[in-house]
Amino acid sequence: MSTDRLDAQMAFLIEAGRLSAVTRATKTSDGARFENSAEHSWHLALFALVLGEHAPEGVTIERVIKMLLLHDLVEIDAGDNPFFGEVDEAAKEAEESAAADRLFGLLPADQGAALRALWDEFEANETPDARFAKSVDRFQPPNMNLVTQGGSWVDYKVTWPVFERKMAPKIKSGAPKLWDWLAPKVEAFLARLSH
Amino acid sequence: MSTDRLDAQMAFLIEAGRLSAVTRATKTSDGARFENSAEHSWHLALFALVLGEHAPEGVTIERVIKMLLLHDLVEIDAGDNPFFGEVDEAAKEAEESAAADRLFGLLPADQGAALRALWDEFEANETPDARFAKSVDRFQPPNMNLVTQGGSWVDYKVTWPVFERKMAPKIKSGAPKLWDWLAPKVEAFLARLSH
Repeated sequence: MSTDRLDAQMAFLIEAGRLSAVTRATKTSDGARFENSAEHSWHLALFALVLGEHAPEGVTIERVIKMLLLHDLVEIDAGDNPFFGEVDEAAKEAEESAAADRLFGLLPADQGAALRALWDEFEANETPDARFAKSVDRFQPPNMNLVTQGGSWVDYKVTWPVFERKMAPKIKSGAPKLWDWLAPKVEAFLARLSH
Repeated sequence: MSTDRLDAQMAFLIEAGRLSAVTRATKTSDGARFENSAEHSWHLALFALVLGEHAPEGVTIERVIKMLLLHDLVEIDAGDNPFFGEVDEAAKEAEESAAADRLFGLLPADQGAALRALWDEFEANETPDARFAKSVDRFQPPNMNLVTQGGSWVDYKVTWPVFERKMAPKIKSGAPKLWDWLAPKVEAFLARLSH
């Protein structure tokens, strides 16, 4: 019984390891190469652990960490979509939902349903936990760009007005204190970047 | 006030990102390259999340996950030591302790002390949480080796008697059910590997 469950859980965990092969548009801290989604997921979980005290009231950091550990798994099938790139949202959602069916479907049914529910909650972005998790996911890349000569902002020719319009609502909604800290830094940095 | 704390926390988080540059002896799930310690830390946290039901009674998975997110940070300064390699234990401990002083020292003092205490608990390997975390850290690499043609076992010419002697106590002590599941698989695999 326990062996059957372990067989299924290990199949899931080995398959999950393929997240290391998904490359993102953001660079690693040292600027040496592009981040992959596995190390990005670790970094985000650490962000949540360390920055939890700045979360709005009612956020349970342990649930946020679990969401962030799981949040990018669907990219194993669906790939990563850079935030400032062009994307067909409906097609992307369908692809990610199919990926979630396949991946969480590798687990024992009860556990697959529970972890899928956590991912669905993250995607829906409605509960305080999901909103903080999503905001942390949006907060990390600009911080990496700030320490890597602009990183993906250079590639996508991002200006402050574009950044503010697209990013402010996403970070503010779940983590207003993090936005207040970040905004002046990004504004000053992008003013110096001439595209 | 909050800004000072955030400045310190972000300095820590950016520095922590350098864990992506530390290479391990274990390969990624697809066998394409060696794992780095950041993606390894993510994978372990996911192992703990998924395999928590097999932990001995009294283990709090949320604390285990936090330990695993932090457990390899010291490698930023001290590097990774492959399990089957030769190492001067006393020198390694001193290096890792100095690394912990420097890294956790980047955080606000109260938070740095709390996270350092969690890392010290992991290293001491005495509480049920730490023992389960350590066992998961020892359980993941053999599973990666099983799906990557033997991985680091080939490089270090590991045989079943050596594996059993060195690894059984480490995995059994914190996660006996995981050892019982793994042992026959590794024994059969290593019997087929001719060094």
